[in-house]
Amino acid sequence: MTTTLIKNGRIITATEDYVADIFVEGDQIKSIGADLPGQADRTIDARGKYVIPGGIDPHTHMELNVGAAISSDDFESGTIAAAHGGTTTIIDFVTQSRTGAMHAALDAWRAQAEKSVIDYGVHMIIANLPDDLLSEMDALIGEGITSFKMFTAYPDRLQLDDGTIFKAMTRAHTNGALVMVHAENGALIDYHIAKFLAEGKTTPNYHPLSRPHASEAEATHRVIALAELAGAPVYIVHVSSRYAMDEIRAARERGVRAFGETCPQYLALASEQYADGSFDGARFVCSPPIRERANQEPLWRALGVDVLQTLATDHCPFTTKQKELGRGNFTKIPNGVPGVENRMHIAYQGGVVQRGWSMNRFVQVTSTAAAKLFGLFPRKGTIAVGSDADIVLWDPARPYTIRAATQFTRVDYNPYEGTTIDGSPSRVIARGRVIFEDDKYLGKRGQGEFLRRGTGAVAV
Amino acid sequence: MTTTLIKNGRIITATEDYVADIFVEGDQIKSIGADLPGQADRTIDARGKYVIPGGIDPHTHMELNVGAAISSDDFESGTIAAAHGGTTTIIDFVTQSRTGAMHAALDAWRAQAEKSVIDYGVHMIIANLPDDLLSEMDALIGEGITSFKMFTAYPDRLQLDDGTIFKAMTRAHTNGALVMVHAENGALIDYHIAKFLAEGKTTPNYHPLSRPHASEAEATHRVIALAELAGAPVYIVHVSSRYAMDEIRAARERGVRAFGETCPQYLALASEQYADGSFDGARFVCSPPIRERANQEPLWRALGVDVLQTLATDHCPFTTKQKELGRGNFTKIPNGVPGVENRMHIAYQGGVVQRGWSMNRFVQVTSTAAAKLFGLFPRKGTIAVGSDADIVLWDPARPYTIRAATQFTRVDYNPYEGTTIDGSPSRVIARGRVIFEDDKYLGKRGQGEFLRRGTGAVAV
Amino acid sequence: MTTTLIKNGRIITATEDYVADIFVEGDQIKSIGADLPGQADRTIDARGKYVIPGGIDPHTHMELNVGAAISSDDFESGTIAAAHGGTTTIIDFVTQSRTGAMHAALDAWRAQAEKSVIDYGVHMIIANLPDDLLSEMDALIGEGITSFKMFTAYPDRLQLDDGTIFKAMTRAHTNGALVMVHAENGALIDYHIAKFLAEGKTTPNYHPLSRPHASEAEATHRVIALAELAGAPVYIVHVSSRYAMDEIRAARERGVRAFGETCPQYLALASEQYADGSFDGARFVCSPPIRERANQEPLWRALGVDVLQTLATDHCPFTTKQKELGRGNFTKIPNGVPGVENRMHIAYQGGVVQRGWSMNRFVQVTSTAAAKLFGLFPRKGTIAVGSDADIVLWDPARPYTIRAATQFTRVDYNPYEGTTIDGSPSRVIARGRVIFEDDKYLGKRGQGEFLRRGTGAVAV
Amino acid sequence: MTTTLIKNGRIITATEDYVADIFVEGDQIKSIGADLPGQADRTIDARGKYVIPGGIDPHTHMELNVGAAISSDDFESGTIAAAHGGTTTIIDFVTQSRTGAMHAALDAWRAQAEKSVIDYGVHMIIANLPDDLLSEMDALIGEGITSFKMFTAYPDRLQLDDGTIFKAMTRAHTNGALVMVHAENGALIDYHIAKFLAEGKTTPNYHPLSRPHASEAEATHRVIALAELAGAPVYIVHVSSRYAMDEIRAARERGVRAFGETCPQYLALASEQYADGSFDGARFVCSPPIRERANQEPLWRALGVDVLQTLATDHCPFTTKQKELGRGNFTKIPNGVPGVENRMHIAYQGGVVQRGWSMNRFVQVTSTAAAKLFGLFPRKGTIAVGSDADIVLWDPARPYTIRAATQFTRVDYNPYEGTTIDGSPSRVIARGRVIFEDDKYLGKRGQGEFLRRGTGAVAV
Repeated sequence: MTTTLIKNGRIITATEDYVADIFVEGDQIKSIGADLPGQADRTIDARGKYVIPGGIDPHTHMELNVGAAISSDDFESGTIAAAHGGTTTIIDFVTQSRTGAMHAALDAWRAQAEKSVIDYGVHMIIANLPDDLLSEMDALIGEGITSFKMFTAYPDRLQLDDGTIFKAMTRAHTNGALVMVHAENGALIDYHIAKFLAEGKTTPNYHPLSRPHASEAEATHRVIALAELAGAPVYIVHVSSRYAMDEIRAARERGVRAFGETCPQYLALASEQYADGSFDGARFVCSPPIRERANQEPLWRALGVDVLQTLATDHCPFTTKQKELGRGNFTKIPNGVPGVENRMHIAYQGGVVQRGWSMNRFVQVTSTAAAKLFGLFPRKGTIAVGSDADIVLWDPARPYTIRAATQFTRVDYNPYEGTTIDGSPSRVIARGRVIFEDDKYLGKRGQGEFLRRGTGAVAV
Repeated sequence: MTTTLIKNGRIITATEDYVADIFVEGDQIKSIGADLPGQADRTIDARGKYVIPGGIDPHTHMELNVGAAISSDDFESGTIAAAHGGTTTIIDFVTQSRTGAMHAALDAWRAQAEKSVIDYGVHMIIANLPDDLLSEMDALIGEGITSFKMFTAYPDRLQLDDGTIFKAMTRAHTNGALVMVHAENGALIDYHIAKFLAEGKTTPNYHPLSRPHASEAEATHRVIALAELAGAPVYIVHVSSRYAMDEIRAARERGVRAFGETCPQYLALASEQYADGSFDGARFVCSPPIRERANQEPLWRALGVDVLQTLATDHCPFTTKQKELGRGNFTKIPNGVPGVENRMHIAYQGGVVQRGWSMNRFVQVTSTAAAKLFGLFPRKGTIAVGSDADIVLWDPARPYTIRAATQFTRVDYNPYEGTTIDGSPSRVIARGRVIFEDDKYLGKRGQGEFLRRGTGAVAV
Repeated sequence: MTTTLIKNGRIITATEDYVADIFVEGDQIKSIGADLPGQADRTIDARGKYVIPGGIDPHTHMELNVGAAISSDDFESGTIAAAHGGTTTIIDFVTQSRTGAMHAALDAWRAQAEKSVIDYGVHMIIANLPDDLLSEMDALIGEGITSFKMFTAYPDRLQLDDGTIFKAMTRAHTNGALVMVHAENGALIDYHIAKFLAEGKTTPNYHPLSRPHASEAEATHRVIALAELAGAPVYIVHVSSRYAMDEIRAARERGVRAFGETCPQYLALASEQYADGSFDGARFVCSPPIRERANQEPLWRALGVDVLQTLATDHCPFTTKQKELGRGNFTKIPNGVPGVENRMHIAYQGGVVQRGWSMNRFVQVTSTAAAKLFGLFPRKGTIAVGSDADIVLWDPARPYTIRAATQFTRVDYNPYEGTTIDGSPSRVIARGRVIFEDDKYLGKRGQGEFLRRGTGAVAV
Repeated sequence: MTTTLIKNGRIITATEDYVADIFVEGDQIKSIGADLPGQADRTIDARGKYVIPGGIDPHTHMELNVGAAISSDDFESGTIAAAHGGTTTIIDFVTQSRTGAMHAALDAWRAQAEKSVIDYGVHMIIANLPDDLLSEMDALIGEGITSFKMFTAYPDRLQLDDGTIFKAMTRAHTNGALVMVHAENGALIDYHIAKFLAEGKTTPNYHPLSRPHASEAEATHRVIALAELAGAPVYIVHVSSRYAMDEIRAARERGVRAFGETCPQYLALASEQYADGSFDGARFVCSPPIRERANQEPLWRALGVDVLQTLATDHCPFTTKQKELGRGNFTKIPNGVPGVENRMHIAYQGGVVQRGWSMNRFVQVTSTAAAKLFGLFPRKGTIAVGSDADIVLWDPARPYTIRAATQFTRVDYNPYEGTTIDGSPSRVIARGRVIFEDDKYLGKRGQGEFLRRGTGAVAV
């Protein structure tokens, strides 16, 4: 097995902060020590670098077919982009058909995902749950798919009624699996959409107006109430609204195991992007929408103090040309923004540099929390003996400016265009293999492995 | 016009407390004074009595057809019972058919209600609201029906989706009308019902288990969120759960005009009634269900400090024989309990006697608040010059023991059987006519009038 | 006895709103009726006017000797000013000496107050409470002085330790009396003062900086905690800070009988007055200080929804010349602003006109609540048969512009200079006597009477 | 240097959980690895054991002279007891005299503490802070004494006014030091004590009645308000009351860096101990007092979810004979209970075994949090390369029953007598030296070192 010795780095985990050497053998960390003897195949000098666990993005949509378009990153380009930004694991989604079983969709997804260059897991989206499919949930858990996503929005395609969500929560919890919810009030949104379209209001600036804070906060409260009644944990994806976040906070205070994820677009972008009503706003159309600027700071703070636990991306890029599908009708704009490549950039600059987060907190929200919540810990999410050697050398003295022109994500714009990050990854190692050195890709298509995830892992 | 002089009573309104004489001419109070000269057709000595505005019960269901049964009080017996307990106004409900217009149902209701012995208004229950019926809402408001009730429960019969509720709130608010909501989560309840029945759990004690606190609190939060977004007031009927009440409190604290009603059965009865699993529990089956004993005190307190505003009854009696329809299947038990006759009894004993409420608060919750919220003030709800002479002489030294054997309500049991109230009405006057003297009925069928209610009246 | 008939006014109490005639005989209201026969000595046409109970200002400091200066209104000029603005009752303060008994100070105060033109009561300020003075508290209650004020500030002159405050609360409560607290943290303030003076920061703009929000909010929380432990009610005077108000709200929500008073200067003035650091700011020096503009709206809202109950003034005017005593040392500026003349003006314009309060709420906060809290109801605080004929005709069509040049308050400036109020009193009647007609004073020195107040009156 | 190899243990830090070997050289951990080669002086088989960082007790009072008595453990016996229970670091207190400088007291303490068998730091208690002593605070920080404790109780001996506490907070914060507060309201307590003694109520059961929840919660709120105003962090020692804890929670939610410590006696004991009024209660007299049973669970929960951060003991044992000093006057009972030996026992049994804490949380509250807050991390508080080899092998299969008869703490009773803990330390290593093997002491008097602690360490 190939061995690697990483010398003198400042090792950061969610708790620790110390200088030592790391010896990697094959896929795993074999030992950590002061002045380890240097007989490795390869030695990397990490002096002056933070040596952190590779990031985990628990919410991506690679090559997602939304009907009129397919998200522009496939699993190869998307995972290369992820790795470039310091992320060495993604968890993507597979969607059950409204009328069919879950495995059918899963097999197709597995075939697509094989070209990934970093490890990957998958969540199952439940679109339909008659009682005779409950046993399929159990089977999937046995196969390492230990989280299920449901929607309170999109009545015609994905929305489940509260009774079905409660049923799924109960069943998942029995098996130690976790329910995730896209929490927006579908009926309320559709009311607003119908009203706007009837009034001829079709430009992208009506997208956020059709999905108000109240729509997200209400649905968040509701699914938490269901979870509380079921005695089950619940994970709210892509929390965009400070009011939805408040619901998670209130629930946690009263002892409910409610968890929340937010995304770079809700932390670092603001609704001014839509303000002029031009079609330029289409590039920022995602759901939930990007909120007003005053909404940012509460979310940053929540992420800093563990009211929200994870930073994901909901990465789902569409090209400017694909976005054109919604010219004349904002509801037809393919929803989504890119993010997987810049997630850790945004967290580092906004959290560590600008808001004084410890590097421990940076690691916690970009990696450890997701590993613990989604059954990957301690294989992923930390720097410890026996863990996968998913290691990033983050150089605090290596500025990086985000530019669409130089990104690996396969899309023609970047929402953070021109933003400079004070530090960035100088080396990205995935299961012992260096796949990025500075900004040069050294990996190999298909190098990533499917992750069978564990259960019972919600106690972060 | 007939004149009446009420001498030396202790006059109580929501604010005042003083001794004076009241001179009534015809239907109305003509003057109030110290030692008014005594030239009336009839003089009543009120020394030692509280002279209070007649009660208003804003939530009754007289001769309601629920399919398999009709509630056992018709408008005559029910309004006599009301008057016996000191209530001189009711507001009943008419239910739109799921497929039809609102007026159709209204006309039938008007015909039934004509035999009332006290004045009566009506709320319209919306079961269906396509856009082309919106103008019918407007018309009804013009006819004095200025409040609309909707359901978040009973998916197959009455439940409206959140978009429709929002639409109705918006429309009602534009016209100064008020939306009322029966707030329980229908899908969640139906999930539990189906589960219990599938498990062979069919006895009345499963009724409360199928309608947990969370179901009511969640729906209450949700409709308040809709109202807040619409900028409209909202009135939650029959709040049974302290957690639902907490949602109203939180909303009011942040400035939302949320109002709440509770009922005697939630204040003075407890779920022990269901506990033994026998069919005796059927007589206490109503929705929401009666809660555990520890739930009572928070509701009393909320009613005392204006977190809840009104005390109504949801009066809907069914005989023990009618309740038998649900033997073997608790969902088939006709839902409802009697209450209209004892509402003020329970408020007096529990509020004034046992919890130290001022008589002002007693008047506020039994009469004034409903008058202000539902467009009847100052015609109803107070003792003032120009107001209807709906006047009760409440004698603090006239104990009354509640007994089915002697009640006017037409049903064979009373949930409060044997409860003694320290004081009770010695004289009940409705629009200038004495209709009860001690416990003797002196009124006349059809004496009550339909009340065309006003709008814009939510600022209690 | 002289009789007066007030015809056709729109009578407003804290609850009612109706048109009727009022017949006054001597000091009291004798009867209220529709079209009362017109045999009075004097008839006043009130058509188009609001007929409201005279205002009660429960916090004034007439001719108060603060050592270096005496507040510029004596009881005659000050009560004329009050009446001009619609206030027909004041409650002033007498201060026990630090070393002596309470009655000594009281006798002097009584002598001064005799020249009042409206009725007046008094609160006792306790500056010292050894156990042997506890019986004097009891005696005062018997004499109609049923409220006691204490300070948590001014360590060298007035501050009492928490144990003494607790002792006083316990004793007062036993007798049905009410404790009032000036709640600011004295030690914290003195720390800041010493620091500023040591740094040569002596201008008026350091006054507010030496008394931060936290100082007021902390002390408010503390005295409420003491009251809660004692099981006693507590009344916080001159709440200036939204954070102090939040403490009152939180206490009330958990059932503590905490009451709060605010003043026009905290509602309608903002700290910009101090901003330029010039000595002009001295005219706005009062304690607590006037806060930043964003603090106003939460106080208005609290007063509107009964989180705060009363609007008082802390009226304590000093002339610009008197204020000069503090040039070069802001701590020597005599503390206080005028207000008694404009209290109801500010409430009407800010509450009714600008924020949509009902006239009922206006009456409640300017009159009824103080009457109920301080043992004056129903003699004062309402329009009812048997109540004192303290009646104001408030003309909504009679604008009034506040100007020092035309005010009755004896001071050379007005903090609200130039503010126009949409309506104002056209007639002010105190115990049956018209003492203002439009802006003409018709009263008589010494016409006011000392009010022996009742106990047990905290349940507003 | 002596080397030790700890093989195959399950290593637990605040974040990690993995199996590996640890190689110790001299005082420190040199490397961690899978199957490290075995060339150590000593090899310890840790298979089946949790390998955790040695505990840190940040609140002890060894050989404390309280006037009438000296706490019964000296630094030798007390630190042996600590080590027996898995604690390898203590932080004790030195008390400035009311009139003197701080160093005087410090020198005497240093001389006493030299006999410790584990490492020790010290907090300085400020009893007096004229401005000319502020520079002494600065000097102490330079000497590694980076935390200062103050009292809001004991007016005659230790209590500081709020201005002085604010001054100290401001100064400490400037230098990165942390202020700790004993938060109870001294005046309120003294009021109750005087009242009880005057009434002849002198038995130990009056101790808790003289120190009510409100006294602690109020003072906690107050010092947090001071800290918030100062922009400084604050650490509340020995939180006994759920209501005090609520204040910490509320502060943290609004972003204040408030930290709280609780103790085993507040988690595992209840006020029944005092209930019979006998003098047996004296053995449970400590301040704050032990609370009612319903108070326990909220504290456990707070410690579990980081509302409280640390578990300390306030270890201050007095023998039954010493407690006799307070017979006839509960205020003369020497205050304090033993705890240092059982702190981790109670946390393990109550937290991990009974309440499902992860072992990570156990490590966090017993070690890591204190290390981070008090400037000892990463030297103490974790298992990492470069850290001190303070390592405990906690054997989950080695039950231990707490018995005074077999304890190392030098006192004749144990408050937890008879309690069985499911697991316990089988090996305790302090800076590389095994000082306990099973229950056998192998250490050496004076082996512990004084810890110069760092600053700026409050961001746990």
